[in-house]
Amino acid sequence: MNFRGRTNRLLNSPETRSGRVFALTIQSLILLSLVTFSIGTLPDLSVTETKTLRWIEIITVLIFTAEYILRIAVSDKPLKFVFSFYGIIDLAAILPFYIASGFDLRVVRSFRLLRLIRILKLVKYNKAIKRFHKALVIAKEELILFGFVSTILLYLSAVGIYYFENKAQPEIFKSVFHSLWWAVTTLTTVGYGDMYPVTSGGKFFTFFVLMIGLGIIAIPTGLVASALSEARNGNELDELEADY
Amino acid sequence: MNFRGRTNRLLNSPETRSGRVFALTIQSLILLSLVTFSIGTLPDLSVTETKTLRWIEIITVLIFTAEYILRIAVSDKPLKFVFSFYGIIDLAAILPFYIASGFDLRVVRSFRLLRLIRILKLVKYNKAIKRFHKALVIAKEELILFGFVSTILLYLSAVGIYYFENKAQPEIFKSVFHSLWWAVTTLTTVGYGDMYPVTSGGKFFTFFVLMIGLGIIAIPTGLVASALSEARNGNELDELEADY
Amino acid sequence: MNFRGRTNRLLNSPETRSGRVFALTIQSLILLSLVTFSIGTLPDLSVTETKTLRWIEIITVLIFTAEYILRIAVSDKPLKFVFSFYGIIDLAAILPFYIASGFDLRVVRSFRLLRLIRILKLVKYNKAIKRFHKALVIAKEELILFGFVSTILLYLSAVGIYYFENKAQPEIFKSVFHSLWWAVTTLTTVGYGDMYPVTSGGKFFTFFVLMIGLGIIAIPTGLVASALSEARNGNELDELEADY
Amino acid sequence: MNFRGRTNRLLNSPETRSGRVFALTIQSLILLSLVTFSIGTLPDLSVTETKTLRWIEIITVLIFTAEYILRIAVSDKPLKFVFSFYGIIDLAAILPFYIASGFDLRVVRSFRLLRLIRILKLVKYNKAIKRFHKALVIAKEELILFGFVSTILLYLSAVGIYYFENKAQPEIFKSVFHSLWWAVTTLTTVGYGDMYPVTSGGKFFTFFVLMIGLGIIAIPTGLVASALSEARNGNELDELEADY
Repeated sequence: MNFRGRTNRLLNSPETRSGRVFALTIQSLILLSLVTFSIGTLPDLSVTETKTLRWIEIITVLIFTAEYILRIAVSDKPLKFVFSFYGIIDLAAILPFYIASGFDLRVVRSFRLLRLIRILKLVKYNKAIKRFHKALVIAKEELILFGFVSTILLYLSAVGIYYFENKAQPEIFKSVFHSLWWAVTTLTTVGYGDMYPVTSGGKFFTFFVLMIGLGIIAIPTGLVASALSEARNGNELDELEADY
Repeated sequence: MNFRGRTNRLLNSPETRSGRVFALTIQSLILLSLVTFSIGTLPDLSVTETKTLRWIEIITVLIFTAEYILRIAVSDKPLKFVFSFYGIIDLAAILPFYIASGFDLRVVRSFRLLRLIRILKLVKYNKAIKRFHKALVIAKEELILFGFVSTILLYLSAVGIYYFENKAQPEIFKSVFHSLWWAVTTLTTVGYGDMYPVTSGGKFFTFFVLMIGLGIIAIPTGLVASALSEARNGNELDELEADY
Repeated sequence: MNFRGRTNRLLNSPETRSGRVFALTIQSLILLSLVTFSIGTLPDLSVTETKTLRWIEIITVLIFTAEYILRIAVSDKPLKFVFSFYGIIDLAAILPFYIASGFDLRVVRSFRLLRLIRILKLVKYNKAIKRFHKALVIAKEELILFGFVSTILLYLSAVGIYYFENKAQPEIFKSVFHSLWWAVTTLTTVGYGDMYPVTSGGKFFTFFVLMIGLGIIAIPTGLVASALSEARNGNELDELEADY
Repeated sequence: MNFRGRTNRLLNSPETRSGRVFALTIQSLILLSLVTFSIGTLPDLSVTETKTLRWIEIITVLIFTAEYILRIAVSDKPLKFVFSFYGIIDLAAILPFYIASGFDLRVVRSFRLLRLIRILKLVKYNKAIKRFHKALVIAKEELILFGFVSTILLYLSAVGIYYFENKAQPEIFKSVFHSLWWAVTTLTTVGYGDMYPVTSGGKFFTFFVLMIGLGIIAIPTGLVASALSEARNGNELDELEADY
């Protein structure tokens, strides 16, 4: 096997020994990069700390760049890779670093968010996601329907609570849009406590909405869970059939 | 096909090309109408903004009115349509606009809420809801039973917490009715934090109620989810049988 | 049929016309009695309102007493009825009223709570509960296990958070018992917001506990839901077999 | 049977009469020990109370020590028991007491936490846990995948909300780490109310994250529940087969 073939195997075959070591190294670097990004958002960092973080960033980005260039170099169809999903992610993970150098510093801070897309590179090496994908396909229609019904329900809840609470708490339930935030935090049962009804009408309406809404919002979860066990059993069947 | 037949197909057959375009246009107008209604509730709107919103409202209502009249005109049994579920909704969606013109402005604001029923027109075009309906039929008896048990549980929880907390927090747990609000927000796990027990007895009672109650309240969701997968499998069976 | 037989049918056969009317009347009176009890807990009632509530109470209790005496009179084994579950409940529903007359008024208020047991009389007429009972029998072992595991988990969470937060918030996380209240409101995801960790250690511990605990606490619900659908399918089977 | 055999049966055979009495006694002592530990954390205990608690602790630890020594004495392979899971737990439950005597008092308080491991001794006698273990094995792969996806989701949510809210609430959403706490309390729907978005962007982002995230976080529960019913049915099958 020539250099190109061996590099290709190193980059794309985590089932071989060298490929596994490489993949694990890249994954560790992604994790390191995410941790340093997070630490970088802490207020009151010393100059030494900021410098160390900057050096770690430079080194990881250089390695990611080398990997990106190698992938293009050994690919049979370089353009296809560049415009593939992972090709774009790989570029997006390193590009902000180079672009940022020429920009205003504050802009850089927000651009850095893009670096997180690197986390999707982890996904690249994970086969198990396929089964989850299969479950989503099984429950697709119901998920769309319930997404639709949930949205309607959230909107109607927001309008209803606006109608009941706007007069009593004009500063809190300012508009239907403000009430939508209440609808979201209530029907997901998060309930921060920043907005809640105080009138009898609003409380009764909330009770009514919760009785209907909790089920609607929670059903998709049950659907995906049952679809996942279907997908698992289907897989076992496929494997059984493959044995014959 | 004559004018009446073609109009009928346009209005009622979203599976044809022209019917689909028409249905999508009406749906977009409903969405636009809902968004403008929501924006209209925002405080501190300028005169220009209020005017624009008013114009959008007038135009959409006129289109909905034209649609309503057409539906009556091309229907074989006009009276049957007028008194059908969607006939009443279609009328309810446009009527407040015309009634409002002759009333006091503040009354109009509350009447505008009825405009939201327009959202149900969206449902009209959605076939997928039938499967959800089937699931509700399957789980009907259990849903009624658990609705009943949940109501009893909420009431008993309210009385219990009133008994424990009324003396310690007379201003918050004022009566059984006020305690019912606590029972609703606690057993649905929303937990706004506007009412919570402070006595040891009340806290122990809450623990006890939650251990029993969480299951009771959450079971209907699981029932509907399993009924939905039953309905889906039943559908697949029906389709398989239809193939033979 | 003699008087005794007819009265017996009236009291115990809700499937006949007269029995149904009687059962519905008693149920309505129970509901009325619960509503008036709840209204009676409202502060600032006028003298007229208090009087009206008192009269409604006297009348409903007299009717319940008449029903109780009739049930003893027409029963084949009066003593068996008196000491049966429903016999005791029926007595408990009327007894506080008569005992209260001779006692201090404040004691009466707390004794009135017992009147709520009347709600269990509603249960008497409800057959559908049997299926729920069957589901509980199916999932019994798992429910006990998870009840046990949940209790251990709540205790360990309380000790853990006490360890992390006691120094930082000695007034809020006072002892393991106070921390137990935090564990209950957190693991049930109620989250009132009266107690929450502020230290990094406490927050990380909460994250850890939630990741493990949410599943543990929520599993019994899923178990009962699946047991209920098993019970339903079993019922259908029983009915099918009964047809042959 | 000689002394060693009889002691062995007493210690390890809860299915015999004497073994059951012994196991129940030990379990009661563990519970007593946990209750006294909890009471010991209460502030403002009198000298008499502290003394009583100390005496109960001394007596229970002495009994546990005697049990530990007996277990070593009657074991066929003493070293194997000492280094087994339960051997280490049994030692860990009594060791802090002896170590504490020679240390500073404050250190003792934190060491006492280890005493809680005694609760795991309860597990020792519980067979039912095996079925739960079986369910975990069935759903293992999915649980790892969802644990992984949940972690990614929590991190991305934290970064997103930091991006939206840091400028508006720099003191609350201080860094990505502080935002992680928000992500945990929100996606588990605990919602204490100590941190919540106030900007429109942050609220919309929360809505978006909740719609996707609730399902992801809740799916493992559904998976374990369905795996448990699989494990139960499998067990019944095993028992049926064992009958033949």
